[in-house]
Parts: sequence; C-alpha cells; structure tokens
Amino acid sequence: MKTSEANLILKLRAVTSKAGSKSGIALGMGDDAALFASRPGFQTILTCDWFLEETHFLRRLHPPDAVGWKSLARAVSDIAAMGGQPRCFLLSLALPKDLTGRWLDQFLSGLRRASRKLHCPLAGGDTTRQKKVFINITVVGEVRQSRAILRSGAKIGDLIYVSGRLGGADLGLQLLRRKARISKSDPALKRHLYPEPRLALAHWLADQHLPTSMMDLSDGLSTDLPRLCEASEVGAILEAAKIPKVSVPKWNKFARSRAVNRSHSDLALNLALNGGDDYELLFTVSPARARWLPTFYRGVPLTAIGTIQRAGFILLAEPDGGLKPLAQAGWDPFE
Amino acid sequence: MKTSEANLILKLRAVTSKAGSKSGIALGMGDDAALFASRPGFQTILTCDWFLEETHFLRRLHPPDAVGWKSLARAVSDIAAMGGQPRCFLLSLALPKDLTGRWLDQFLSGLRRASRKLHCPLAGGDTTRQKKVFINITVVGEVRQSRAILRSGAKIGDLIYVSGRLGGADLGLQLLRRKARISKSDPALKRHLYPEPRLALAHWLADQHLPTSMMDLSDGLSTDLPRLCEASEVGAILEAAKIPKVSVPKWNKFARSRAVNRSHSDLALNLALNGGDDYELLFTVSPARARWLPTFYRGVPLTAIGTIQRAGFILLAEPDGGLKPLAQAGWDPFE
Repeated sequence: MKTSEANLILKLRAVTSKAGSKSGIALGMGDDAALFASRPGFQTILTCDWFLEETHFLRRLHPPDAVGWKSLARAVSDIAAMGGQPRCFLLSLALPKDLTGRWLDQFLSGLRRASRKLHCPLAGGDTTRQKKVFINITVVGEVRQSRAILRSGAKIGDLIYVSGRLGGADLGLQLLRRKARISKSDPALKRHLYPEPRLALAHWLADQHLPTSMMDLSDGLSTDLPRLCEASEVGAILEAAKIPKVSVPKWNKFARSRAVNRSHSDLALNLALNGGDDYELLFTVSPARARWLPTFYRGVPLTAIGTIQRAGFILLAEPDGGLKPLAQAGWDPFE
Repeated sequence: MKTSEANLILKLRAVTSKAGSKSGIALGMGDDAALFASRPGFQTILTCDWFLEETHFLRRLHPPDAVGWKSLARAVSDIAAMGGQPRCFLLSLALPKDLTGRWLDQFLSGLRRASRKLHCPLAGGDTTRQKKVFINITVVGEVRQSRAILRSGAKIGDLIYVSGRLGGADLGLQLLRRKARISKSDPALKRHLYPEPRLALAHWLADQHLPTSMMDLSDGLSTDLPRLCEASEVGAILEAAKIPKVSVPKWNKFARSRAVNRSHSDLALNLALNGGDDYELLFTVSPARARWLPTFYRGVPLTAIGTIQRAGFILLAEPDGGLKPLAQAGWDPFE
C-alpha cells in the first residue's frame, strides 16, 4: 500500500530519528508541517539555500556524501554569520528515480554526519522527482534577543577582518576538476567538499559584542565585501598583502589554470579574492575593540585585511602601493 | 556596482516592503538570514514545498501570476492543515535569465497578491539561475501551544469529513489543457490556478477542538486518506455517494478524457477521488462531537464521507452497495 514517495520519506525519517527530541522539535517528518518551540528570549533565524546539480555541484565530480554534507553546511553558515546557532532544518529534495538507491543512501549519510556535527536535526521536507538533483535547505536557528550581527552595522574607520585563509575551496574545486592525483585528505579538497561553518567563532564573537557587522564568505571576497558595504552604506580599502591566502601547490598543471594571469602569487591572490565556497567569516570591528580580538581563535587565524571608508568606492591596495577599484569577479549566477 | 543578482533581489524586496513590520519579522531580504520573533504561548510551524516547471506547472499553460499565487497558497495550505496561521515565508527562486523581466514581474505580482491575502509577508530567500523555473517556498506559521491538529489522531469510529467539493482543480487543469473556450472566471479554472487555502475554517475547527486529525488534500483523496490512516494506524470506509463532487460540464470533449472509464458520473467520482490540488481539508471528528459541526462554514460545505475503521484496509463503498479496496490513483511523483 506504500507509494514510492512514502518509501523515500521513510529513508529520510531515519536521518533524524534520534537527534530531534533535544532540539525543540515537537513533530518532524510525516505530517503536513513540522512543529518547533522557540525559547523565550531568543529570536528565530530563517535561511534557505539552493544546492543544484550543474550549478552548485556536478554529479560526475562530487561524491554523494559530500553533496549531502555541503548542502547543509553551507546553509548553516548563514546562521553562523548572524552569530546564531542552528536548531533544525527542512530538506526539499528533487531527484531522478534511478538515484533513489545507492546515491540517495550516500547523500543521506553525508547529510546525517553534517546534521550531527552541526547539532541540526532534520525536521521536515518535501520530495519530488526531477531529471537532475535539486536540493533546497531551510535552516532554522536562534540567537539571543538583539544579539544578531547584521551586515548593516559597519562604520567608517572599522577594521575589516576575515577568519581562516581564503581561496582554499576554489583551489580544491580546481584540483578536483583536473583530477589531480591528490589524497582525499588534501586540505583544499576537504575545504571544497566538506566545509565547516565557523559556528563556534561566530557565536563567541557575537557573545563578546565584538563585530559591528558580519557575513559569511560564500561567493568570494570581491563579491561579498561589496554586499556588506552596500548594506552598511560604506566603502572600503582592502590590502592585498594582508589577505590570508591559501597555499597553492607549485605544480605545472597550475600554470595552465584559468585563474593564472602573471605569476604564482597572483594565482593565490586571485583565489583569495574571487574563489567561492570558503564559508569563512567576514566581519568589521571598531578600532577601540579590535585590541580585544585574539590573533587566533581555537587555531583559526583572525586577520585584519583593510578598513571601512566612506561610501563610494571599494579599493584594493596592491603590494607595490598602487590603488585600484576592486573588481567583482566572484560568483554571480546571473552574470 | 550592482550585480544582476542584486537587481533581482531588489525586485523581490519590493514584494514585502510594507507587510513585514506587523508580522514579527525583524529583518527581511538582504542579509544572510531573516530574523523572526515568535510569540510566547505559540509553537512555530515549518513547512516547505516544491513548485517546479514541468512537474507542477507548465510555462506555456500557466500564467506567471498564477504560478506566483499558487506557489505560496499551496505551501500555506500545509499551515492551515495543522490549524495554524501563516506568519512569513522564504522564497527560493531559480529561473532562466530571459525570464527576469516581464515573466518575473507578473510572477511577483501574483505572489504579492497571495502574500497580502494570506497575511504572509516575504522574509527572505535565495535566487539562482537555471534553464527552467524552480520554486521552493518555506512558510513559517504559528499555532497556540498544543492546539496543532496532526494527521495521527484519528480513532476507530470517527467520522471522516471533507470541506468543499472535490475534483474542481483537476477539472480546471483538464479544461486548460484542452484549451477549452472558458472564461477566466470559470470556477474550476480558478480552483486550479488560484487555490485558496482553508485558513479560516481550519483555524475555527482547531479553536473548537473538533477534529481528532486533519490534513489538506493536495495529491487527491485516494492518496491522501491512506497517509492520514497510516499516521493514525487505522483503516477507513469511504462512501462514494457521499463524496461532494465537482460539477462536470456535459461536453463531448470530456467523453474523450483520460479520466473517463464508463460514464459522466464516473468521471466526477474519478476527479473527486484522484484529482490533486484541491487544498480542501480532510479531517476526522468523533461521533459525539460531530453534532457540533455545522453543515456549512462561511458558505463552505462540510460533509461526512465515511468512517474510520480498524487498521488493515481502506475501502470504497460504491453506490450499488459493493465494497472494493480504494485504489491509490492520486499524484505520486515516483510512480
């Protein structure tokens, strides 16, 4: 009497059987909607994120468990970017009928690992059939009343910070595309396939009231910084030399990379400015409070890379001292 | 300096500029995530819903404003089905670049009308480009603590009710497919293009503690009733003669319909049992409380169509008195 869709839903329910009870979820998969009890004194954070075959991942390149992990991790990163904690998520999954076996099992295995690691159980969802794999994830999070850190709070004179090193995820994608002989534990590859949102750092920063504004880097610094500046109605100067960049292997293969224009160090800067999917934090701190910011938080470097300026320009100061407008060369699906 | 995606987001923001403030939304489009304040004494309801070109609508057949209206209305129907009220929604929209002009404007116009009618403002979203139009809508609603009506509460002996008449939306789709000469105000066509979730009725039913279980009819009675029975671990007998059916026009065109097997009245029953997209309420009421249920609520008929039985079978009593297993011939994307 069970329909095929019912069988699929049974598989999904298994993702979350144990994690639900502690998370305020009164009712998960299998009814019209999920029920969620928010805690007094907290605001609910809502975010949704596409993860689409051929736009965001390639079936021939990306292991299904990485697709599962990343689809949740990147949505949770938006919760981290507000200084919040994830509470539960909804999964909308459209997939071809021939992927409802092994592919789906591995996808759900990656999703389950992310769900446990990020303390974010599955609360509900919707499934349908499509020729390609389309995923949409809604994450519900929470943040203590009036503690959320928005994009819009940067002030002139604030220092601009990033966590970690930038460009690693894009380098990982290029290694994967070139089918370079790399081990599964290569840091760049891991950054690309299994990103870890900076939840602990973001929560700590929010708790200390340090950032005046914050967002996560999903589409590349050169695309995301202008968004923060626009929301805050300010401009910025970035210092190229200060941006913490991924280490690029000195392989001949990379001399032919699309990203190379002049030299090896240019490639690292290009990846750091324009590479997407890093899910590091971009945030601003007033000069007075910047002294309270450590150089590292739990091993993750926190680096000042520029300053907030009056609105009207976003400039890149090059190592030779020259200034040029920052070109937006990150990810924009409609360009 | 604005990217194309930024321009698209500006259009989306215009959908919700005025409606947001009264709805507990502290922050809408344009940041990493939306902020939502839930009221004390209420539970949050979460639901998400695919609405995909070629699976759920056809671009050549369905006007863009109907796509906008229906994408939200059908998701809100899941909130109604729990006895709740919608508070806000997230829109994930993937569309071809050549539809970001007139098509998008009309789509947003239909979405805006639904958003106002259903008191459900846009709180955030995600946009990307695709070859076809893919929509995913998450609706956040609320229901007074422990008032939510689940699918799982039906008891043996309960009466099974539906609101309205069934099969109208599927008839509307068939009229549209045949390009029948019908006016835009044809009731069946309106049911298909601009469904209205039964929010007021569902809220009233929940307030009166009348239903033991409830869900909305989205995939057809013959598919949805078994879901309710499975959740409640019960069976059912439906009486074919009692099911309130759409009036089918006696046109020759319909004699060739895929749904016809023997006669005109068979067609009406077939539409009522298997037609999707009606968004009427299916609910169960104990015999003792059924006397409190009016025959109509604000002009919408409430009709007893069968009884809940012990688990193991779901039967259809035919007008001639014969009993047969109810065939699940509604919508299942994986069949």
